[in-house]
Amino acid sequence: MPDQMIELTFPDGSKRGFNAGVTGREVAESIGKRLAADALAVKLDGELLDVSRPLARSGAFTVVTPRTRDGKLDKGALHVIRHTAEHIATEALCRLWPQTKLVYGPAVEDGFYADIDLDHKISVDDFPKIEAEMAGIIAENKPLTRYEVPREEGLKKIEAEGNEYKLDNARQADGALSFYISGTRRGQDFEDLCMGPHVPSTGKVGAIKLTAVAGAYFHGDEKQKQLQRIHGTAFPTKKDLDEHLARVEEAKKRDHRVIGKQMGIFTISPLVGQGLVLWMPNGGIIRTELQNLMQGELLKRGYSPVFTPHIGSIELYKVSGHFPYYKDSQYPTLKGEGKEGEREEYLLKPMNCPHHIQIYAAQPHSYRDLPVRLAEFGTVYRYEQSGELTGMTRVRGLTQDDAHLFCTQDQVEGEFKSTVELVQDIFRALNLTDYRVQVSLRDPKSDKYTGDPKVWDKAEETLKRVAGDMGLPHDTVEGEAAFYGPKLDFMVKDCIGREWQLGTVQLDYNLPERFKLEYIGADNNRHRPVMIHRAPFGSFERFVGILIEHFAGAFPLWLSPVQMRVANITDRQEEAARRVVAALRAEGFRVEEDLGHGKINAKVAESETAKIPYLLVVGEREAASDSVAVRARGRKNLGTMPLAEFIARAKQEVAERK
Amino acid sequence: MPDQMIELTFPDGSKRGFNAGVTGREVAESIGKRLAADALAVKLDGELLDVSRPLARSGAFTVVTPRTRDGKLDKGALHVIRHTAEHIATEALCRLWPQTKLVYGPAVEDGFYADIDLDHKISVDDFPKIEAEMAGIIAENKPLTRYEVPREEGLKKIEAEGNEYKLDNARQADGALSFYISGTRRGQDFEDLCMGPHVPSTGKVGAIKLTAVAGAYFHGDEKQKQLQRIHGTAFPTKKDLDEHLARVEEAKKRDHRVIGKQMGIFTISPLVGQGLVLWMPNGGIIRTELQNLMQGELLKRGYSPVFTPHIGSIELYKVSGHFPYYKDSQYPTLKGEGKEGEREEYLLKPMNCPHHIQIYAAQPHSYRDLPVRLAEFGTVYRYEQSGELTGMTRVRGLTQDDAHLFCTQDQVEGEFKSTVELVQDIFRALNLTDYRVQVSLRDPKSDKYTGDPKVWDKAEETLKRVAGDMGLPHDTVEGEAAFYGPKLDFMVKDCIGREWQLGTVQLDYNLPERFKLEYIGADNNRHRPVMIHRAPFGSFERFVGILIEHFAGAFPLWLSPVQMRVANITDRQEEAARRVVAALRAEGFRVEEDLGHGKINAKVAESETAKIPYLLVVGEREAASDSVAVRARGRKNLGTMPLAEFIARAKQEVAERK
Repeated sequence: MPDQMIELTFPDGSKRGFNAGVTGREVAESIGKRLAADALAVKLDGELLDVSRPLARSGAFTVVTPRTRDGKLDKGALHVIRHTAEHIATEALCRLWPQTKLVYGPAVEDGFYADIDLDHKISVDDFPKIEAEMAGIIAENKPLTRYEVPREEGLKKIEAEGNEYKLDNARQADGALSFYISGTRRGQDFEDLCMGPHVPSTGKVGAIKLTAVAGAYFHGDEKQKQLQRIHGTAFPTKKDLDEHLARVEEAKKRDHRVIGKQMGIFTISPLVGQGLVLWMPNGGIIRTELQNLMQGELLKRGYSPVFTPHIGSIELYKVSGHFPYYKDSQYPTLKGEGKEGEREEYLLKPMNCPHHIQIYAAQPHSYRDLPVRLAEFGTVYRYEQSGELTGMTRVRGLTQDDAHLFCTQDQVEGEFKSTVELVQDIFRALNLTDYRVQVSLRDPKSDKYTGDPKVWDKAEETLKRVAGDMGLPHDTVEGEAAFYGPKLDFMVKDCIGREWQLGTVQLDYNLPERFKLEYIGADNNRHRPVMIHRAPFGSFERFVGILIEHFAGAFPLWLSPVQMRVANITDRQEEAARRVVAALRAEGFRVEEDLGHGKINAKVAESETAKIPYLLVVGEREAASDSVAVRARGRKNLGTMPLAEFIARAKQEVAERK
Repeated sequence: MPDQMIELTFPDGSKRGFNAGVTGREVAESIGKRLAADALAVKLDGELLDVSRPLARSGAFTVVTPRTRDGKLDKGALHVIRHTAEHIATEALCRLWPQTKLVYGPAVEDGFYADIDLDHKISVDDFPKIEAEMAGIIAENKPLTRYEVPREEGLKKIEAEGNEYKLDNARQADGALSFYISGTRRGQDFEDLCMGPHVPSTGKVGAIKLTAVAGAYFHGDEKQKQLQRIHGTAFPTKKDLDEHLARVEEAKKRDHRVIGKQMGIFTISPLVGQGLVLWMPNGGIIRTELQNLMQGELLKRGYSPVFTPHIGSIELYKVSGHFPYYKDSQYPTLKGEGKEGEREEYLLKPMNCPHHIQIYAAQPHSYRDLPVRLAEFGTVYRYEQSGELTGMTRVRGLTQDDAHLFCTQDQVEGEFKSTVELVQDIFRALNLTDYRVQVSLRDPKSDKYTGDPKVWDKAEETLKRVAGDMGLPHDTVEGEAAFYGPKLDFMVKDCIGREWQLGTVQLDYNLPERFKLEYIGADNNRHRPVMIHRAPFGSFERFVGILIEHFAGAFPLWLSPVQMRVANITDRQEEAARRVVAALRAEGFRVEEDLGHGKINAKVAESETAKIPYLLVVGEREAASDSVAVRARGRKNLGTMPLAEFIARAKQEVAERK
């Protein structure tokens, strides 16, 4: 192929040659006019580019349109739409308040934000005016035009404009500086220092919405002047935006931080520390039920429960490679001089694997003992930035439902399969039926992975085969493997359509090597075992946070902290109601009583508010006949039935984990 | 009472006046000739003194004889006997090797040791010779004579003797220096710098034994010259000594460090850290069974399981008072600067109470909610000196079967009682039937206790009443309370007669005050709750360590990591044996198979060595009849029975935790 030619590989695997310098739009047009018209950007080897950027090299090529082939919103499309929306927002601000100084503004998850320096304090009352101005800019359907200037020239240009923030941003960038004009006329139309990429024209931003305004500091430094940060979002269509806003609204109602506090599930105390979850009595019940479910599955499957300390010598993590590699996301070490002059340094454990490896290594192993499956509900500690902490879902202390399997190469496939089955069984037990699997492979062009490429090939083949054999709906993503091996992640949808990454199963050829693990094979020689890491829930903290939002606090019977409440209608049934409470407790149910003088309607309403699965009402008739009037959560009146019948029914519901 | 008179209070509470300067022996003689002849020392307000020391002040007075009234060896008596035995040992060494330099030698638990500087390397081969010399000194029945000299004179005397070790010891002492002569002739008979006290004469040391010799350093400093440390023990009679030696021998066989390793119960890895127990698969089973037993009892009794992090902000422990008070027995803190410039300092939690208090404090409470009973298998960390660490019984990380009850003053007695019952039920389930209770009260003369004396009186009365009402065999010990409240400790005897302190139940009025805990009473006013701390096992690590020694690894069926082993007699029964294994596993039993070609006698022997409760042998006859030939541990042949019968039998044994 001559030098001036490049070869593009399309998603279907086909390849075609183009002259170097061809634009993404031209390539799209060569496929179809419709595709070119829909194109918001293109991707070359995963990098998002403007459709108008000349392509200088060969690679994997994709045209980014608002939706993927299966009709879902494309992540790259959302990114460029929101990035352009941010430019539209700042242009609108500059039109309304010409003294506005632009500071910084990226696309982020769920939208974008723009930091500005402005003497007028923006409030939500200003939003309609700004949104109207933005709508005007979108209606103008102005092209986004990129131009580059040599670094020195660019710096001079920004200096002349007198924006000290942009100047600082530009100084921190490398090489030539790029600008984007909203329009075509350099020096006349609105423009901003920007790396891009953007959609081809403002009209491609289908729908926008400003969502919040707050204070912010330049580079997050509190000593600097306070700026204003305006948050917004954007979507290809109004319908997409409305669905998103409805989801946000629904998510707010389901916020696990609010429900978790109301229901006494967890608390976070500043005296204990940020991001450190204290499981309150009701949370303790939910976690215990989930642990019991998991423990039962583990014992059935030949796992051995183990328990390990929450700290390890720094030497352990030097061998494993976790230190100093992950230094920035770990708590500071415990460094001290013992009373007998020993110098010791410990780390709060960021993961359980090195400890489990020490257990494996404590005894010699024969191939007959393998696989060894060590399981622990192990609490690990990671020093996430305080700004990123969120209730139970982003924490600093997390308890993994962790296990490490040590097996021979021949056992890998079988063990991997049964591990995936375990995850599926657990999800089934929890009625989490809408999930897909992501098979994360190495980037074959990168050298950041440890181990023999042939072993990698085999491992990746195994994973793909397992996913295929088991009929798992899966995507294969190159470049997302762990550095020690490929993995399989479970992406689960909650009932309002949000996707969460939960369980993970990973193959590891690296740690057994670093720790020189061995077993004696049938050939009487020493061999290295293979490790499988897996955690079906991920962590109990995050999983329960997600479950709270999934169920909006209305947990199924087996998980409900309070499973039933017993109420009397009048004082005359108080004793009969107490007998019902005692009978239910004797059966092991978690029961509350509401035997006050309140009206029964008020009692029903309170039980609904508290999201209690069953309210059992004892009136004159029930008291006389050993019966209860059963009201299920959601104001469903199941009528009066003998207490024994209700008990049998509830027992079955618990046993089936409905 | 005139100044020259003192008043002594005897154990029976009676009081008598004596002239100041009366000796302990004279007081003993005034009670009875026999008592005076048996006296090894006296105690004045708890301080051990030579019988010949003049008494200068009033106080509680006891004559120390070899045995207490109930026939047990007296601890004070053992102390003085062993202290004198150490002088006898060093005198013997000086007689045999006149160049011996004495360094230091105390009485310790189970005996004494003597550090000496001697060019001849002492070996166990020298022991008979030394012991014979010691026996000679005992036969001489020489009096131990104390004399004091002014400090400067004493230092000069030692300097003249040219013993740099003794000089260093003397310099570190305060005030006048005391010496003990083994005999009466100062400057002629053997003597040593010593604080005392001693028995009246060498003949009172009934039986001695040297037990070991090892290297040691002066002041434990490795840079100093290496010395020799000779260990020994002594008892009032040869019978006492023999019983002790037999117990030591039996304990060695039961050493949990040896059995724990053999059975794969736990390991300690230097890469993880000293004193940090890693529970291996077999240990994980034992701990899980114990946790299940405890968890079942807790749920029955209305406890709420909670889970809390393993670190807490240093501020938490400043409020609780644990920091800096217990600073020396804690791991160094984690001190760091967050990425966002936050300065944070954390401590590995040394106990769970402050975390549970944060859970209590996270919600408002009414008297109707009380008692709140928060339970956690909480792992805490204490930085014990490395020299004191022993397997599972002296560790740095320990998992308490902890709980904290928050109740009203009116509920204290009932809650305390049911807590004691819980401990008793747990002990009963484990067949630990030989225990006594120690009621630890405050020292009424000390001011180190926090809180109102009236509240203390009430609390102590409650404890004593509970112990009495429940018919617990108990001793009351003044001065042994925690600083925040009185407590009740369970002292349990293992099957070789050693006493271990296990469960504890404590009353606490202090922490609720420090954390300003509240509840709203029936009177609508705010009140302080009372806390009860309790842990029936103490910690899982220590408890399992003790259980290993108690059972010598032969755990009862329900606790056994491997409950049964199935063996075939010949290859022809291999399949039938596999069916038996599968049937047992389906019933939830932990089963191993021994289906090799080995002889059945060897299989029986191996099963015995591995301490497996049941070996099920499948021969021709059994294979044909769905039966198993059952051999119980201890080579008990239970004969052949249908498999179903064995299963029913084993299930019952597990259920009853026999």
